[in-house]
Amino acid sequence: MKSLFKQDLKVVNIGLQGFADNIVAAGGQVTHLSWSPPAGADAALGWTLANLVGDQRIDQANKVAYERYLAAQPRLADLILAKDAIAGLAKGERRILHSGPPIDWDNMCGPQQGAITGAILYEGWADSLTKAEKLAASGKIVLEPCHHHGAVGPMAGIISPSMPVWVVENTAAKNRAFCNLNEGLGKVLRFGANSPDVIERLRWLGTEFFTTMQVAVRGLTDANLKPLMAQALHMGDELHNRNAAASGLLFKRFTLALLASKLDRGAIQRALAFVAGNDHFFLNLSMAACKSMSDAAHGVPGSSMVTVMARNGVNFGVRLSGTGNQWFQAPANPVDGLYFPGYTVKDAAADLGDSAITETNGLGGFAMAASPAIVQFVGGTPADATANSRRMLSITLGSNPAFTLPPLNFGGTPAGIDARLVADSGVLPIINTGIAHKKAGVGQIGAGITTAPMSCFNDALAALTTGLEKARTRRGKGGKKR
Amino acid sequence: MKSLFKQDLKVVNIGLQGFADNIVAAGGQVTHLSWSPPAGADAALGWTLANLVGDQRIDQANKVAYERYLAAQPRLADLILAKDAIAGLAKGERRILHSGPPIDWDNMCGPQQGAITGAILYEGWADSLTKAEKLAASGKIVLEPCHHHGAVGPMAGIISPSMPVWVVENTAAKNRAFCNLNEGLGKVLRFGANSPDVIERLRWLGTEFFTTMQVAVRGLTDANLKPLMAQALHMGDELHNRNAAASGLLFKRFTLALLASKLDRGAIQRALAFVAGNDHFFLNLSMAACKSMSDAAHGVPGSSMVTVMARNGVNFGVRLSGTGNQWFQAPANPVDGLYFPGYTVKDAAADLGDSAITETNGLGGFAMAASPAIVQFVGGTPADATANSRRMLSITLGSNPAFTLPPLNFGGTPAGIDARLVADSGVLPIINTGIAHKKAGVGQIGAGITTAPMSCFNDALAALTTGLEKARTRRGKGGKKR
Repeated sequence: MKSLFKQDLKVVNIGLQGFADNIVAAGGQVTHLSWSPPAGADAALGWTLANLVGDQRIDQANKVAYERYLAAQPRLADLILAKDAIAGLAKGERRILHSGPPIDWDNMCGPQQGAITGAILYEGWADSLTKAEKLAASGKIVLEPCHHHGAVGPMAGIISPSMPVWVVENTAAKNRAFCNLNEGLGKVLRFGANSPDVIERLRWLGTEFFTTMQVAVRGLTDANLKPLMAQALHMGDELHNRNAAASGLLFKRFTLALLASKLDRGAIQRALAFVAGNDHFFLNLSMAACKSMSDAAHGVPGSSMVTVMARNGVNFGVRLSGTGNQWFQAPANPVDGLYFPGYTVKDAAADLGDSAITETNGLGGFAMAASPAIVQFVGGTPADATANSRRMLSITLGSNPAFTLPPLNFGGTPAGIDARLVADSGVLPIINTGIAHKKAGVGQIGAGITTAPMSCFNDALAALTTGLEKARTRRGKGGKKR
Repeated sequence: MKSLFKQDLKVVNIGLQGFADNIVAAGGQVTHLSWSPPAGADAALGWTLANLVGDQRIDQANKVAYERYLAAQPRLADLILAKDAIAGLAKGERRILHSGPPIDWDNMCGPQQGAITGAILYEGWADSLTKAEKLAASGKIVLEPCHHHGAVGPMAGIISPSMPVWVVENTAAKNRAFCNLNEGLGKVLRFGANSPDVIERLRWLGTEFFTTMQVAVRGLTDANLKPLMAQALHMGDELHNRNAAASGLLFKRFTLALLASKLDRGAIQRALAFVAGNDHFFLNLSMAACKSMSDAAHGVPGSSMVTVMARNGVNFGVRLSGTGNQWFQAPANPVDGLYFPGYTVKDAAADLGDSAITETNGLGGFAMAASPAIVQFVGGTPADATANSRRMLSITLGSNPAFTLPPLNFGGTPAGIDARLVADSGVLPIINTGIAHKKAGVGQIGAGITTAPMSCFNDALAALTTGLEKARTRRGKGGKKR
C-alpha cells in the first residue's frame, strides 16, 4: 500500500467526465472511459432490458426481419392515382391520409390542418378555405395515417384520392409502397401552404405532369432504385434532406424514356423542366423505396427492430416489427436547425412527416457521413457528419452492405434500429428534417436535425415483453392440449 | 551534465525514421519530425533555390499569376469545328495536334501514332491504315502540341481540322481554350484505337452529334462552368478520372436547351443517349475550362507558377508562367494503377495526355479528397485520398476558395503549383490518369495514379533564374542609358 502511493498513478475514470478533468487539471494522467448506466438508470426499464437483451427469440426474430430488409429490392413500378393504388382511397369515401401516428383534426398542428384544407380544395369537396376547414372539422372526412395504407408522405404527408402516387415494389417479397409527388420548395402543400398557386400546381401535377411521367415510368429501361440510391450516397446525397444526385440520375432515365415515347414535345419539356428544377424530386421516391424495404421486415413476432418512425407535428410515433400495428408515441421534439430570415424556433411546428422512414432504413441522419453538406447546413463539420453515422452503428442490428459510405472507408450505412440498443445505450436515432411554420398556410421556414424521443422505444419494449409473455403462456397451454 | 543522464530523456528525432524506431524499440519515448534535406540534397539546385526562395520579384509575379487564375470564369462559349476555332488548323495545311510536349513521329508512343493514323483516315487524307501511317511518317503532316494552339486533348490528344472542339472562354480575361469531344470508353481514338468502328463514331460525332450539340450549347440558359465544377466536387468528382456528377449536371442543361430547340427529335434522342451513356463526357470540358484558367495565369515574367503539365507518352513536359513557351521535359513516369484483365504494366504506354491540366488547376489528383472512389480504384482508402490533397497543399501557392473539398472541412483545393516548393520539398505533383496500351490500335488497358518527374521542375527553375538575371542586366543597362 505504501509503495502504491510512491508510484506514478495510472488512473482509469469511468462515467462522469468531470472526475477525469480534475485529475488532468492537477497535472495527472487519466484514461477516460465514456459510460453511462444502462436504460438511463431507470430501474424498471433496466429489468425489462435485462430480460430482453440476449433473449434468443428476439435475436432470432431480428435476424429474420433484418435479412428481409437487406433482401428487399425496391423497383419503381408505376405512377398512378392514389384512388387506384390504395384500397382505402378507392371506395368513394372521403378519406385523406396524413403523416405520422393517428391524430384528430382538433389536435393537429397548423401545417397539417393547412395541407388537409388544401387537399379538400384540390379534390373539389369545398370551394373555399373556410368551407374546407369547416368540412374537415365536421368529422365527415376520414383522416388516417399514410402508414395505415402502405404509404408515406413527407412533412404534412397529405395523400388524397386524386393525387398521383409513386408505386414502389419490393421485387423480393412483392410488397408495394406508395408516396405522393414532390412539389418543390417554398410555398407547397406539404409545408401547410394552401394558397391558389399551391392548388394550381397540384392540379398540373395531377393532370399533364401525371400522364407524362406515367409514360416515363412505364418506359424506363432500368427501374431499380437500390443501385441508384447506392450511387447517390457516393455523390453527396443522404437521400433525406439532400437528393440532388439521385434526382439527377433519375432525370437522365426519365429523359431517355420520354424521348423514346410518342408524347407531345411540349408536355415532355414542361415535365422535365419541373424535375430538373427540383433537387428534392427524388425524396418521395427514396421514401417509398424505404417504406417497401422496412415493410418487408415488419410483422416478425418477437422482433425489436424498428420498422416505422413517423411524426405528425405533435407526436412522434414508432412501430416495431414484432409489435404489429401498435404505435408507441411521445411528444415530438423541436428541430435544431437553421431558419429562413425572419423566423425562429418559436415559429416552428414540432418535428413533422413520414420522411424519418429514411432514417429507419439507414439513410438520412444515419448516412450523414455521405453528405457533409447537410451538417454544414446546420453549423456542423464533416467530422460531425462521420461521427453521427458511426454513433448510429451502436443502435443498429448491422450495416447495410448495399449502401456504403465513402468516409466510413466504404463501410455500410448503420441500418435496422434495435429498440433494445436505443433504450440500453441512451443513444437516440438522429433525424434530418425540414421545418414547417406552426401556422397553417405559411410553409417551410428552415431545416435541421432532431432526434426521436426515448419513451417511444421504452414503451415499445414494454409491449414487446408483454407480447412475448403472452406467446409463452399460449404455447404453454397449447402444449398441454396436444 | 551528471543530472542530465539521471533524468528521463526527452528525444526529438529529425529526419530518418530509423533512429526514432530504435529508441522506441528500447522502451524510450521520442517525437519524430519528418524532414529531408531541401532540393533532394543536390548542392547546385540548393544554391539555385537559395536565390529563388524568398525572391520578392518571384513572390510578386506569382501573386499576379495566381490572382489571374483565381479570377478566371470559364464559360462554355461554343462547339465548332477545329478549323474554325484554331488559327493553326484553318490554313488548309495538313496539320494535326497531339498531347504533351513536341515530339517527332518516329519517337512517338504507339497510341499516339495509332490515333494520328486514325485522324488521317477521318480527315480522308488516306484510305487505309498503311497509307495513313506512311503519310504520317513522310513528314507531310505537321504534328504539333495542342498546347501550342490554346488547346488540350486527353490521352493521345488528337485534334484534326474537321473534329468539333469545345470553346471555353474565360470571361474575366477573354482568353479562349479548346478541347475535342469525349468519345466514351473502350476502343476510342484517344487511347490509340483506329478500327473502322472508331472512325465511324468520330464521323457521327463530327456530323449529327456536332450540329445537335452546337444547338444545345448555343441554347444554354447557364453556360458558366466554374459553379458547375464546384458542385461536382461536392458530388464525388475530382473532374479528371471521375466526371459522373458534372456530366449529369451538364446533361440536365443540354436536355432543356435541346427540348426548347426546333431540332429533329430523333437527333436529340441519339445525342442525349450518347451523353447519358458516358460518365466521362465532362472530362474534355473540365480540361478546356482548366486550360482557360491556367492560360490566364501564363506569361507573368518571373513567376514560378506551373501553368502546363502535359505528357506525350514518352516525355513529361512542364511550363512555368514566367518562362514563356519553353518546355522542361523528362521521361514520363509509368502509371501505378489497376489493369484490365489480361494486361500488366509491361503492356502500358508511359504517362500520356494533356489531362494533367486538371491537376495544374487544383483538380484531379489534387482534389482527390473529393473523390474517395478514385483512390479505392487503385487500392487505396478514403484517408489516402484526403492525405493526397493535404500533401499537395505543401507545393501550391494557395487553395482555391471557388473549389472547396468537403473532407478538408470545405477548405479550397490546393492550386497554383510553385516549382520552387516542388524542388525544395521533393513533393511531386500527383496525377490521376488513364493507361493506354503501348501498341497502336489497342486502346485503354487501365487507370491509375502517377507523378510528375522532378527534373522538369529543377530545369524550369534554372531557366527562370537565367531569365531573371538577364532581366536584371537589361534593367541595369537601361538605367545607365536614361
